[in-house]
Amino acid sequence: MRDAYHEELDAIGDSLVEMARLVGSAIGRATTAMLDADLKLAESVIANDDKVDELQRDLETKAIQLLARQQPVATDLRIVVTSLRMSADLERSGDLAQHVAKVARLRFPDSAVPRDLHATILEMGQLAQRLMAKAAEVIITKDVDLALQLEADDDKIDDLHRTLFQHLMDDRWKHGIETAVDVTLLGRYYERFADHAVSVARRVVYLVTGDYADEIDPAAVVAAAEEPAAD
Amino acid sequence: MRDAYHEELDAIGDSLVEMARLVGSAIGRATTAMLDADLKLAESVIANDDKVDELQRDLETKAIQLLARQQPVATDLRIVVTSLRMSADLERSGDLAQHVAKVARLRFPDSAVPRDLHATILEMGQLAQRLMAKAAEVIITKDVDLALQLEADDDKIDDLHRTLFQHLMDDRWKHGIETAVDVTLLGRYYERFADHAVSVARRVVYLVTGDYADEIDPAAVVAAAEEPAAD
Repeated sequence: MRDAYHEELDAIGDSLVEMARLVGSAIGRATTAMLDADLKLAESVIANDDKVDELQRDLETKAIQLLARQQPVATDLRIVVTSLRMSADLERSGDLAQHVAKVARLRFPDSAVPRDLHATILEMGQLAQRLMAKAAEVIITKDVDLALQLEADDDKIDDLHRTLFQHLMDDRWKHGIETAVDVTLLGRYYERFADHAVSVARRVVYLVTGDYADEIDPAAVVAAAEEPAAD
Repeated sequence: MRDAYHEELDAIGDSLVEMARLVGSAIGRATTAMLDADLKLAESVIANDDKVDELQRDLETKAIQLLARQQPVATDLRIVVTSLRMSADLERSGDLAQHVAKVARLRFPDSAVPRDLHATILEMGQLAQRLMAKAAEVIITKDVDLALQLEADDDKIDDLHRTLFQHLMDDRWKHGIETAVDVTLLGRYYERFADHAVSVARRVVYLVTGDYADEIDPAAVVAAAEEPAAD
């Protein structure tokens, strides 16, 4: 049986996973709302962000209470502090999904994205959602190899972001300035959403390996795999 | 004489103020670099962001050591946790100043901003820098009235951001898509920079009043002023 202390620590982990689940769903639904010009779906994404914000506030309260009552040191202390950081990443991801939904709402009954960019935006949305699903899995499993996969997925998002810009800069762009502004901002929202998912995964790697790098270093992952788990 | 514990707490506060000073200077210099198409100045802003990142890492290390060794509770614990959050805001502000400088570098030897928008962008840059200077002052003085001023300044930035969008959406826009994309992103960078400065000020208000609101509530400020300082 786990003691009260580890139960509190687990509860913080559960909240992080729930936040990741909610924001992953939000970015998927926001993307659908935008491509289908579905106002109701957009409104629901916008309204649901409150749940994410509430989870973050609860998590922060729990973490501070745990620090005050249990006064963890070493690894446990790092877990709590890092969880606070991760919750900030996830809360911000929720905001970004909400921004996408707001663009959808603003342009209703039209789609903010022209047809010839639907496939690119759909792929960015799917990748962003998948990155967040993997980030949640990394929180649960502390699997550093899976964390490495997020770096590769993030590179794909960056490639799509570049594709989007090439379309915008193409002399044949015929959708006008308003759509160019929308697409510019949407590209930025997806890219930042993905960055936050990657950041969550990196923080887990930091907890496992003790290294917080700008990029996850495969050598550190191998070294960690050879050591006893730091769970 | 202050004890070692409060010296450590002060050191964390000093680091936050230094970070705010650096990123405030960075956004001012990045704006100048962009309007004057000054490549050298842009390069220096881009390179100097390393210092901000280093300060953040140091601050995080110091905060975790302090939590482990001194095991603060109540107000002191909240100060340390909130400082971690503020350092994340400031680090991100540094990134945004660097983004502005990178746009300047990308468009050199041209200015990324057309002449008829220089005044608007200049004002956004100046306001952003002033917001960060005030945020630093709020960290030092814990002056909740000054924190309220940041909300008003932030409203001005939002107004300028709207002005920028009106220019973009105007049928008479004649600067093409590339410039529209640059201006869209620049507007977003300044707006987010200002948001982070406001967030820092709000976190100080939270420490003083115990309330973390989406907007600083003047009533809470008045209530706090009537109570003994929570320093």
